[in-house]
Amino acid sequence: MFESAEVGHKTEKKEYEKTVPALRAALLDAQFELLEQRKFAVVVLVNGVDGAGKGETVNLLNEWMDPRHIEAWAFDSPSSEEAERPHMWRYWRALPPLGKIGVLFGNWYTQPILDRVEKHSKKADLDQQLDAINRFEAMLVQEKVLLVKLWFHLSKDAQKSRLEALESDSKTRWRVTEHDWRFYKLYDRFREVSEHVLRRTSTGQAPWLVVDGSDPRYRSLFVGRTLLEVIRKRLADVARGWVPRQTAAPLPEALDHRNYLNTLDLDRKLGKREYAELLEVLQGRLAILTRDKRFASRSLVLVFEGSDAAGKGGAIRRVTAAMDARRYRVIPIAAPSDEELAKPYLWRFWRQLPRKGKVVIFDRSWYGRVLVERVEGYCTEADWMRAYAEINDFEDQLIDAGAVVVKFWLAISAEEQLARFKEREAEPHKRFKITEEDWRNREKWGAYERAVCDMIDRTGTERAPWTVVEANDKEFARIKVLRTICEQLEAAFEQ
Amino acid sequence: MFESAEVGHKTEKKEYEKTVPALRAALLDAQFELLEQRKFAVVVLVNGVDGAGKGETVNLLNEWMDPRHIEAWAFDSPSSEEAERPHMWRYWRALPPLGKIGVLFGNWYTQPILDRVEKHSKKADLDQQLDAINRFEAMLVQEKVLLVKLWFHLSKDAQKSRLEALESDSKTRWRVTEHDWRFYKLYDRFREVSEHVLRRTSTGQAPWLVVDGSDPRYRSLFVGRTLLEVIRKRLADVARGWVPRQTAAPLPEALDHRNYLNTLDLDRKLGKREYAELLEVLQGRLAILTRDKRFASRSLVLVFEGSDAAGKGGAIRRVTAAMDARRYRVIPIAAPSDEELAKPYLWRFWRQLPRKGKVVIFDRSWYGRVLVERVEGYCTEADWMRAYAEINDFEDQLIDAGAVVVKFWLAISAEEQLARFKEREAEPHKRFKITEEDWRNREKWGAYERAVCDMIDRTGTERAPWTVVEANDKEFARIKVLRTICEQLEAAFEQ
Repeated sequence: MFESAEVGHKTEKKEYEKTVPALRAALLDAQFELLEQRKFAVVVLVNGVDGAGKGETVNLLNEWMDPRHIEAWAFDSPSSEEAERPHMWRYWRALPPLGKIGVLFGNWYTQPILDRVEKHSKKADLDQQLDAINRFEAMLVQEKVLLVKLWFHLSKDAQKSRLEALESDSKTRWRVTEHDWRFYKLYDRFREVSEHVLRRTSTGQAPWLVVDGSDPRYRSLFVGRTLLEVIRKRLADVARGWVPRQTAAPLPEALDHRNYLNTLDLDRKLGKREYAELLEVLQGRLAILTRDKRFASRSLVLVFEGSDAAGKGGAIRRVTAAMDARRYRVIPIAAPSDEELAKPYLWRFWRQLPRKGKVVIFDRSWYGRVLVERVEGYCTEADWMRAYAEINDFEDQLIDAGAVVVKFWLAISAEEQLARFKEREAEPHKRFKITEEDWRNREKWGAYERAVCDMIDRTGTERAPWTVVEANDKEFARIKVLRTICEQLEAAFEQ
Repeated sequence: MFESAEVGHKTEKKEYEKTVPALRAALLDAQFELLEQRKFAVVVLVNGVDGAGKGETVNLLNEWMDPRHIEAWAFDSPSSEEAERPHMWRYWRALPPLGKIGVLFGNWYTQPILDRVEKHSKKADLDQQLDAINRFEAMLVQEKVLLVKLWFHLSKDAQKSRLEALESDSKTRWRVTEHDWRFYKLYDRFREVSEHVLRRTSTGQAPWLVVDGSDPRYRSLFVGRTLLEVIRKRLADVARGWVPRQTAAPLPEALDHRNYLNTLDLDRKLGKREYAELLEVLQGRLAILTRDKRFASRSLVLVFEGSDAAGKGGAIRRVTAAMDARRYRVIPIAAPSDEELAKPYLWRFWRQLPRKGKVVIFDRSWYGRVLVERVEGYCTEADWMRAYAEINDFEDQLIDAGAVVVKFWLAISAEEQLARFKEREAEPHKRFKITEEDWRNREKWGAYERAVCDMIDRTGTERAPWTVVEANDKEFARIKVLRTICEQLEAAFEQ
């Protein structure tokens, strides 16, 4: 992968000075067209060998372009707020909105490579991480991110000369640390691991671009031109209506119209007295569980989905009543804000993730992508088809970071929904709960049912299973919700 | 202040159970009207004696109302991200948007009271803190926040009984810690300090409401009803077009039309060669200063204001060119996002504040309030009149937290602006920089000039002075900007 970067590229000073002004002007133009169109975001990943000019190049890009619309991020040791969430959280925080450029200096490649170089991880671990990265990047590309992955390379000899040159100058000596020399000794191993990483993660949509770091002028021109070309190309593509290549295979439907939902017994019931008793017992159990010492190193993410009027709000209130208000937050998911619309669709959920010892309750969630967005056509078929795997990856990351993820689908029959709508319309202080839209959604009952069944099939994983709650009887539903949360917390504590 | 809370209020169980259902329904109604209207936000402060039912009451409110639209926040020891910013940053983070309710359990009163009880601060320190709090809260009130300040009170005897009762029950024993008993010994002092704090911060717009915490039923009804009444009253007020009482005295204008700007010599010049030399020297000096060890415990906040085409962007680029791109962020201030519009106007700047060792550069800033918003009538006269003091307070907090605040007004003459507009229109890749709006703004030159002079008079403080930059000559301006930053950083290091 590094062959071409070691042939000794060079740019003469004269040529450099002749070329730069036009390149800068063109970069500025491209940057402002990007900003004006707001059709995609640019993420530049900066990785590679120390001493190959990564920092200098980032500074140069900021100098050549308008620094008001570039954000450069460096990631040192995580802050406490970052450390208590999935490791990708800090990168989600840094994603630029449509129209802007983000430069991530050190990123999701850094730790997997270092861990492998230092032999803290096995080859299989690394490959798993790379698979996850590939899926993550594929998602970014589909979500209107132009990914530019720059790998700054130096041959072993060149790295040595570079370190020695820095050290011999009193003005730059401070830049060379013991760490650099220690790392230089690992050069061969670093090269081997990097080569593997680059090969495994160079995809058609997001290839690595290897930069020969040995000559500053050549390096600068190469990066500037490359960036200009990819942005220009994408601007042109977008101008003629191009979207990322998307295909989706059709989903099969059962031939006999039997499905998971319509074969459930939605009328399971609980007597009032039994309900009152169980409610108290289960709320007490949940209260103790969320105060348990073991919960201090976990977090709880609850997802409530269900038809309109299925009783999500009521169930959520029975759950929150068992917990200290300082411990949980309920996130009602409605239309996204304009800041949220300018980021990949999962961003609005990432920003709400709980710290350790905390509970976040989503009243509707990322599943909107495969439910309302699918049924109403707010996204393409290819978009919601890929969402199943993206959502599974997202939840995997939550669980890897210690979260307990409990997902509910509250299922009621069409008749029960009608009865509840009418009842709500009659009650003055519940009228706000029924809108024109609810009546419109009702007409699409069949389409929603199909979407729900597909969702349950495709995102009900071993680690984050769906709990479908028979909810025609509110009391039965609430008890099942509470019991499930308790059981899943207890199971997590015992792992 | 606590007399009425010690007469021994009580509510019988029967009355409580009779009253609660209607109260809950009314609270829910009020909450949803609040949510629908989105005309103000509610912030409930929960403070007072330990054991007086603060936690229980917050939980109860969440139970009685819809927890999806209440956010309860507790503030323990600050996270690293919080600790590196002004101490009010964590509370700004927690402010609810219009239409929602935020419950701040422990808040800006907690530390000042504790510090004084423990004698870590003097009476004069406390009073200064209380003054700052009063100004902060007055701002919140003007910025459409309904402030409900609840003080939970218990007499000394009642607190003792409460702690003993908790201890004697094996189920609640864990809730009493040594800290509680230690704090009980300080009761008299706590009471004395609290009384002083309540008296000094009970204003007409945001009075303290003292809650007798001894009887849970009485306490719950009292808080529920109080909250209901204040929300209902504000809803009714808003419905009939009420706004917070605002008055503004007229600002005097000089009788001879001489002002700070029109008496400046805007044509100060620098030769090309001198510019190139000074640029290199000053950028080098700035590079070293931002890498200085002493900068690790400071931060730098740069504010660039100026007429259209005054050269803010060019000056900013000369500053950023001297710094590592990983260290700074440039924040271009344009129209606020919808999330920003739902919060007090300073919120969008608070969210961008730098951590230690970092630089944030605002290309336009909070001064928009007293410039464009004043001139274009986007806010009332009373709004921008109060902004001067609010902005001074804001910058004071930045400086108290270690930030160096450097503010520039780039001044050009009307003739120079016209020349630059025409030049930009002629150059294809700068055309995006001139809009219809720029031409319209130009017609209001006089109004802007007056606003700028008022701004400089009223917000040029000793701690955060304005540097007015004569900017008809771009080179002169850039050098003055760079030199000023270097000098102010050096002065800060020497303090």
